[in-house]
Amino acid sequence: MPHLVIEYTGNLDADPTRLLAAANEALLGTGEFGETDIKSRCVRLEHYRHGVEARRSVFVHATLSILSGRTVETRKRVAQALAQALAACVPPCADAEVPVTVDLREMQRETFGKAVLPPG
Amino acid sequence: MPHLVIEYTGNLDADPTRLLAAANEALLGTGEFGETDIKSRCVRLEHYRHGVEARRSVFVHATLSILSGRTVETRKRVAQALAQALAACVPPCADAEVPVTVDLREMQRETFGKAVLPPG
Amino acid sequence: MPHLVIEYTGNLDADPTRLLAAANEALLGTGEFGETDIKSRCVRLEHYRHGVEARRSVFVHATLSILSGRTVETRKRVAQALAQALAACVPPCADAEVPVTVDLREMQRETFGKAVLPPG
Repeated sequence: MPHLVIEYTGNLDADPTRLLAAANEALLGTGEFGETDIKSRCVRLEHYRHGVEARRSVFVHATLSILSGRTVETRKRVAQALAQALAACVPPCADAEVPVTVDLREMQRETFGKAVLPPG
Repeated sequence: MPHLVIEYTGNLDADPTRLLAAANEALLGTGEFGETDIKSRCVRLEHYRHGVEARRSVFVHATLSILSGRTVETRKRVAQALAQALAACVPPCADAEVPVTVDLREMQRETFGKAVLPPG
Repeated sequence: MPHLVIEYTGNLDADPTRLLAAANEALLGTGEFGETDIKSRCVRLEHYRHGVEARRSVFVHATLSILSGRTVETRKRVAQALAQALAACVPPCADAEVPVTVDLREMQRETFGKAVLPPG
């Protein structure tokens, strides 16, 4: 951990490699996580819809899962640093705002499972 | 928010556009969410398995993430409205029941991150 | 429930059918779940990044969602059984460890929505 999922609507001309690099740098920059612990993925959404009225559906949303135990203040700071880092490398839309949101959730430390497969 | 993910097994002849429209209408109809706040995606699963015995694996599952603070009664009503709306537009299977389930989870309001990219 | 999502980086030569079979057998083997309740999917990640430095990014991560109400001890045992079962059928990398992790999260039982579509 942390485990990060970045989703973006397929109508955005976003660069997943750039988003991942920016996100991981931002997470490392918070000082909360070990460099080798950050594991991220980026998903381009194919089917999506914003609201019910006719409009351009466009959004970026990240789900960051961290082990439980950090203060609200720390979590808030991490979520906001991530939102800003992502917003800085999402291309703007000509005709719509692009909301960039971060859901920071806690994984229960006591019940986190792990196994490591050695090189071979 | 709310953020909705609808997953369906790839052996169902479901229409993602229709599922998204029905889901967002149902969420708006609960009176709990602003129209512009509803952000949904639909994912067709390619690799899936129901149980361990030989059977037709088929299911629809939605994860609805809403900000924390609503009562259990409200959340229950929202989850059930969504399950029914989805079930109403999933095509039936000739030889199997199709379970449609909704996991309603709460996102921590205090640590939700947000940035908005202006049109440009 | 349980609902399981297995993610693996696309540079691993993993077999999703085998991972799903092993995972569902392991979950059934814990004695905690009904055979027909286990619903799993496997996702091959296309865009991912481990940390910020130059390295081979490789990982397997599972998110297991179960209904709330089991003890920490039970959940720990389930998560560990799953991690070991997955590790046993992930192919090793020549030049890197492969971390296999399991996030066991609880779905709120009171607000879980369900509808069943009869065969037709």
